[in-house]
Amino acid sequence: MEQINNIQVVPCTSSNYLRPFRVHYNQNGTKKSWDFMQTHDSVSVLIFNTTSHCFILVKQFRPAVYMSEWERSKAKPLQPSEEESAEATPAEPKVPEEDKAGETSEGTSSHQPPASAGVTYELCAGLVDKPNLSLEEIARQEVLEECGYDVPVTKLRKITSYRSGVGVTGSKQTMFYAEVSDENRVGEGGGKPQEGELIEVVKVPLNEAMTFAFDESIPKTMGVIFSFIWFHSNMSPKYKISTNV
Amino acid sequence: MEQINNIQVVPCTSSNYLRPFRVHYNQNGTKKSWDFMQTHDSVSVLIFNTTSHCFILVKQFRPAVYMSEWERSKAKPLQPSEEESAEATPAEPKVPEEDKAGETSEGTSSHQPPASAGVTYELCAGLVDKPNLSLEEIARQEVLEECGYDVPVTKLRKITSYRSGVGVTGSKQTMFYAEVSDENRVGEGGGKPQEGELIEVVKVPLNEAMTFAFDESIPKTMGVIFSFIWFHSNMSPKYKISTNV
Repeated sequence: MEQINNIQVVPCTSSNYLRPFRVHYNQNGTKKSWDFMQTHDSVSVLIFNTTSHCFILVKQFRPAVYMSEWERSKAKPLQPSEEESAEATPAEPKVPEEDKAGETSEGTSSHQPPASAGVTYELCAGLVDKPNLSLEEIARQEVLEECGYDVPVTKLRKITSYRSGVGVTGSKQTMFYAEVSDENRVGEGGGKPQEGELIEVVKVPLNEAMTFAFDESIPKTMGVIFSFIWFHSNMSPKYKISTNV
Repeated sequence: MEQINNIQVVPCTSSNYLRPFRVHYNQNGTKKSWDFMQTHDSVSVLIFNTTSHCFILVKQFRPAVYMSEWERSKAKPLQPSEEESAEATPAEPKVPEEDKAGETSEGTSSHQPPASAGVTYELCAGLVDKPNLSLEEIARQEVLEECGYDVPVTKLRKITSYRSGVGVTGSKQTMFYAEVSDENRVGEGGGKPQEGELIEVVKVPLNEAMTFAFDESIPKTMGVIFSFIWFHSNMSPKYKISTNV
């Protein structure tokens, strides 16, 4: 689906998105320090379309996932199937030297993985970066912008909240559940192209959901897997979901 | 439980743990760039003790979570309950100026939250940073080091894998399930104090697990919630788990 090429990796000395801080503190009398990053909290929404009995997910190319896959592929011999499925132009990336620390020389290959290796399936989600809006209102906006469904705030049900990236960001994520119907569809979704977003809306039929969730060849977030299994535990027998996991 | 004080936050110009990179690339002909960080993949283990019918979790003070809670507390008026439960010495942290961008002046308070705000419940977990060991062997080591159970690799069952921090790190996490008994307990666990780890092993009884999972006042990772609900879906009726969620 995606054509990814001309990849160059450079050290990032100053970023508007990644801002590392160091905290010094005393824990039970012992001096410690820890490097962390400040990020926004976030919301995510499990969307279930009651007309088509499908879950609505988003799918997008994630550079961080792609680079992580590439790094992992260097550590093991190249598989023939990877070569066949390559969609992107093989090009040697410029990776800083320190980046190569810890790499095993045996079986190392810098072959570029296919673009699909960086495409992940995720719940509709967004950052909590508008101080005047409630979490529900932010979630509602994301459902509209990314997936094209206009769902009233009152139809958003909180599933739960939890801490993410506890070693690095420690931000709080809140997950909602929203039932929508084809009548709520007012647009195409797809995110904000002017902000560089290139999001594809995908439907996962209810009866394929658990197979999808546990198919490790489909890159996805834990939010997708957790919310599907939550639906199974909490929404059946209202909606039936097959479980052949 | 924890005494946290003398907190100082400084910008982090160079870190062995957080190394930001920038990737430039072409996506479908459009030039783009993205800031990301390289991290290791990780493993986590849902441990179930068949003798006591308890889940075995770890609990530790997470500076990143604590700082995130503190930041959030500045945006809303202080609640009396927070003041009463404060365990740590209230001290004004040195926060760089740019850190304060986007903060609302209304209701801002830099009151230090209690240390407990940074203590999270997590699955036993560890980084995949030993190239010669399999994921199962790394998981086994973590179960021994953090929780004190010696469990053979053959008893580790893979639950699934998924991508985490898709915007920033995109690393791959693999989750295992391990059944242990009191007979497998060979030590206290607690992590490696020489590496600064201060980990408490906690037991969550099976019949309290779902209430624990969805109690938002207990800070925890999504891995805990997901794995408990996975257990409920996959291990019952072998083991009964009450569900009053």
